[in-house]
Amino acid sequence: MKLEVVTIGDELLLGYTIDTNGAHLARELAGVGIEIVRRSTAGDDAAEIAAAVREALERTGAVITTGGLGPTSDDLTKPAIAAIFGRRMRMDEEILEKLKARWMARGWSGGFPKSNEQQALVPEGARILANNHGTAPGIWLEDERGRWVAMLPGVPREMRGMLADTLMPLIAERAAAGGETPVVRSRTLRTTGIGESNLADLLGDAARGPAGMPLAYLPGWEGVDLRLTARGLPAAEAERALDAGAATLRAKAGKWIYGEGATDLAAVVLDECRARRVTIAVGESCTGGMLGARLTAIPGSSDVVLGGVIAYANAVKVAQLGVRQGTLDAHGAVSEETVLEMAAGARERYGAGLGIAITGIAGPGGGTAEKPVGTVWLGVAADRRMEARRINTVGDRDEIRRRATQAALALALRTLRDETL
Amino acid sequence: MKLEVVTIGDELLLGYTIDTNGAHLARELAGVGIEIVRRSTAGDDAAEIAAAVREALERTGAVITTGGLGPTSDDLTKPAIAAIFGRRMRMDEEILEKLKARWMARGWSGGFPKSNEQQALVPEGARILANNHGTAPGIWLEDERGRWVAMLPGVPREMRGMLADTLMPLIAERAAAGGETPVVRSRTLRTTGIGESNLADLLGDAARGPAGMPLAYLPGWEGVDLRLTARGLPAAEAERALDAGAATLRAKAGKWIYGEGATDLAAVVLDECRARRVTIAVGESCTGGMLGARLTAIPGSSDVVLGGVIAYANAVKVAQLGVRQGTLDAHGAVSEETVLEMAAGARERYGAGLGIAITGIAGPGGGTAEKPVGTVWLGVAADRRMEARRINTVGDRDEIRRRATQAALALALRTLRDETL
Repeated sequence: MKLEVVTIGDELLLGYTIDTNGAHLARELAGVGIEIVRRSTAGDDAAEIAAAVREALERTGAVITTGGLGPTSDDLTKPAIAAIFGRRMRMDEEILEKLKARWMARGWSGGFPKSNEQQALVPEGARILANNHGTAPGIWLEDERGRWVAMLPGVPREMRGMLADTLMPLIAERAAAGGETPVVRSRTLRTTGIGESNLADLLGDAARGPAGMPLAYLPGWEGVDLRLTARGLPAAEAERALDAGAATLRAKAGKWIYGEGATDLAAVVLDECRARRVTIAVGESCTGGMLGARLTAIPGSSDVVLGGVIAYANAVKVAQLGVRQGTLDAHGAVSEETVLEMAAGARERYGAGLGIAITGIAGPGGGTAEKPVGTVWLGVAADRRMEARRINTVGDRDEIRRRATQAALALALRTLRDETL
Repeated sequence: MKLEVVTIGDELLLGYTIDTNGAHLARELAGVGIEIVRRSTAGDDAAEIAAAVREALERTGAVITTGGLGPTSDDLTKPAIAAIFGRRMRMDEEILEKLKARWMARGWSGGFPKSNEQQALVPEGARILANNHGTAPGIWLEDERGRWVAMLPGVPREMRGMLADTLMPLIAERAAAGGETPVVRSRTLRTTGIGESNLADLLGDAARGPAGMPLAYLPGWEGVDLRLTARGLPAAEAERALDAGAATLRAKAGKWIYGEGATDLAAVVLDECRARRVTIAVGESCTGGMLGARLTAIPGSSDVVLGGVIAYANAVKVAQLGVRQGTLDAHGAVSEETVLEMAAGARERYGAGLGIAITGIAGPGGGTAEKPVGTVWLGVAADRRMEARRINTVGDRDEIRRRATQAALALALRTLRDETL
């Protein structure tokens, strides 16, 4: 089964909002072997929506849209697509009752707004896709030739919930009924601390594609992801080919690989700490809390993360982390000596097993010839070991800070595992 | 001038990478009055690239592509588009020399790789767009009817640089030569702390569009943005209409509006602190450093932000922020009493003018009937004022935490300005 995705909204078309829905749909559908052949974005314009959906429908006969189902006047998706199918709109009393009940249950002030009734208008002959995560229901419209359009809401949380709860089972059923088993499977190995071309050198013969599969290099702030893709194979065979390819990559570059898929290095560090019954405290200067935020973004992190100090000002480094004024004077805030005292201070003052510290120059100002923007020192203090490392990274302020958290976590992982770089 | 954008790459189509290039192009072009009517994404497949670009060209006669210009085998953009224009590929010796010189200057090991020569292949009759930020040059192809395609690289930094340096002047020149002055201008007012439908009620007659312009409601974790759009007016007239519309919105909902455009509430709080010579210290439980990270994401924040405590564990709240054990025992960690002691503790221990604290239940676990997931207490301690507020928010862990930082900043701003909610 091939399909196209059309995301709708001026805010997407004009770039005010980054389209994460299209990417989420593509990932989820590819995971069950459904091929997305094109994605488009149309603005809040009935004629443009109709044209984009009609053209997609002509190419593939299967289209998912997101957006434009809400109560406000710029939500035009349903009538525009109903017109393609030659259907009129009707008020669905059941949906209307649910909308009203939900409104009352929330205890919102004022009566049910007239404008919200629009959400209960559906094309004739439509199948309703329940929305368990919000108000606007989804719509499934199909013609006599079996061509269909599924309309999902634009709010990412609602769209994701409806996709998982309702649409994916429907699409899987449809694909199975058609006797189709097209499979596209992929496996991603995540590396950090090594560049794309050095990685290619290290992989040697496998650099272009181990086990006869294409290998993509996907560099980002977390490191370089290696993605293997198996196309056109039955599921079991695809998995075997991916296993073989991944084994080859691990044999050659295993030292730099910290996980598969969407694994977050922070989660790997937390698991390693949990296994060793080690707690964490952080001391952050240039990242200002980003490392703590990243660690605590992971549900259940409270059994490992105690907390830490955001030591943005030097006075805070001294008073709250016990960095000596003499160290700051002699070596500066961005130095091996300072970062080690910060890590040790966080560990001792918070009674943690592991102290992790970051101090650097995130820019855009503050760089010098000796310590340019992008210079960051990372430090880790453990029971019987102290490690520090300097990185010189590139990018804007946000990217430098994110790269710094990644390098600090990589250093923490190696320290926990007692590995050297 | 109307144009379409086609972004190219399996990683975009399959959702492994979020497409930020398309959004950037749309924002930049809309800013000079060029209307993007559709955006599409095609995978690394020559036939699909050719089809997507050909169809876009037929609709508008003006297309920008990003991606697929690199040296690896999946970079197919140039030959696929050359074929649409009936052009052959030729080796450009000047580009080849530059690529080689760049390679040598970097001091990279080994000779210039054969695969990199591909980057110097260009369609016959193409205009070369210099790349001052990377290796792959951009391409401008045009037919005898004046229809054109501009091919930009996919690496965001390179794409943005080439757009600003080379392509925008070219497009502006082209639009001026055509005697066109189509203008699309928009203005966004950012609100927080009030829902979409309450905002619509508050705006009354202006809810659908003040000054005869369409008004879009864009809800997100930061709040609801209100976007006014002026189409088809000369620039000065569009600006006057936007001024009038914005004034109407401010008159009705000014209390909830904290800025325009892409203004970050954190930056507004920093400016307010700067004007009052007040410093900030934070005390964060469920957000784990996210508020600190957000404040310090802003360049130059070091004159206001001293730092703070990530008090994830209760023991840290007691030891590092001075929260009384009795308060925790009597009211729990997520309570008005605790958040106020956290805010006061951060302020006093760090010697700051303003203490801002957050404690809540970010989920997915930890909720109770009385304090469900999404319950967050925010506290602010200032010189002669203490404020606390409870929010009950929705979303996943990440969204709840982000919403918590926004609500905390909103409370801080009102406290600084001595306003009540």
